[in-house]
Amino acid sequence: MNFCSQCGGRVGLRVPPGDTLPRYVCNACGTVHYENPKLIVGCIPEWENRILLCRRAIEPRHGLWTVPAGFLENGETLAAGAMRETLEEANARVEIIDLYAVYNIPHISQVYMLFRARLLDLGFAPGDETLETQLFTEEEVPWSALAFATVRNTLGHYFADRRARAFRLRMGTIEPMKPSAPAPHETGQADENTPAATDSGRTLDNGAAGG
Amino acid sequence: MNFCSQCGGRVGLRVPPGDTLPRYVCNACGTVHYENPKLIVGCIPEWENRILLCRRAIEPRHGLWTVPAGFLENGETLAAGAMRETLEEANARVEIIDLYAVYNIPHISQVYMLFRARLLDLGFAPGDETLETQLFTEEEVPWSALAFATVRNTLGHYFADRRARAFRLRMGTIEPMKPSAPAPHETGQADENTPAATDSGRTLDNGAAGG
Repeated sequence: MNFCSQCGGRVGLRVPPGDTLPRYVCNACGTVHYENPKLIVGCIPEWENRILLCRRAIEPRHGLWTVPAGFLENGETLAAGAMRETLEEANARVEIIDLYAVYNIPHISQVYMLFRARLLDLGFAPGDETLETQLFTEEEVPWSALAFATVRNTLGHYFADRRARAFRLRMGTIEPMKPSAPAPHETGQADENTPAATDSGRTLDNGAAGG
Repeated sequence: MNFCSQCGGRVGLRVPPGDTLPRYVCNACGTVHYENPKLIVGCIPEWENRILLCRRAIEPRHGLWTVPAGFLENGETLAAGAMRETLEEANARVEIIDLYAVYNIPHISQVYMLFRARLLDLGFAPGDETLETQLFTEEEVPWSALAFATVRNTLGHYFADRRARAFRLRMGTIEPMKPSAPAPHETGQADENTPAATDSGRTLDNGAAGG
């Protein structure tokens, strides 16, 4: 950030009075420009014993598989955003069942919130950002070609919960993979941009409390 | 938004190619400036059969009571942000128990995520944005002087779940109060800025699906 979006003046990075963190503050008009994490919302669309995945037509992770998901828009509820993304990416109409996964990705300031959803019909088809849409059983899921750690973790938990016939909210934190100490379960298409998954199901990321 | 924060050029509101919504786009360098909902995180700090509330020293709702909560910062997990806000507003050290409430407030593009948390000691005290900090039983909570619908709803559910000895994630949507049709439960300090609470506990805001 170089300029003030209000008056066009130059901004500088400093801690405003009463604040604790550096912010971009306009040198001319004094406007403080806060930057905050973004929410990504999406669905796991279910049809009998299968779920609907999308193969990405865009970067990052072009050609890899994911659940339909994207940035929550202003004025939207979480569930409405998740349904909109499912319609945009897979032309799929769903009804929301429940919130299923909440993932922190603090190193890129994102929070993922994924819902279980019921596919209302089989009229799905790739949207503009999607190469293919397809239903998969657990065995058919392209586990080695999933686009994101969030999706890999969520779907792993999802099918485990499904076998146990007991879905419960899954929370976790995705941390950047350290090149010097790659997580043993991170193989396949892993690269330096691939985050290491450090969640453990219901275990909360309670940071400093450490418990 | 009037100017591009990258180059200082004038921005205009238009739908970028491949997008579906109008965005602020720079007339000079073409940068698209997205605006997205903000996350507010906080805690319900528990001590035996009491919870810790804060009386606000700032607007909006100066002088009214709330749970410690505030905007999630870049680089933070939800739980870390909730603990930081609890420390800043009430000088209270907590450990997170579980996510308890998720509230959409789409008309102001906010999502609240509140955690149940265990107060680690009684050394709490008002922070800079707080007039008073105090522990309350259910009967002692200043129900008619709570600052926000989100807090009123969450605490109502919280004490009901507590009596039932069964906490479950509460989700809902807060809608702006229509002056022509005030919600009957919105009395007391209600004004035109007071949102009407329309949640029903576990009922999801599944928008167009209507179910």
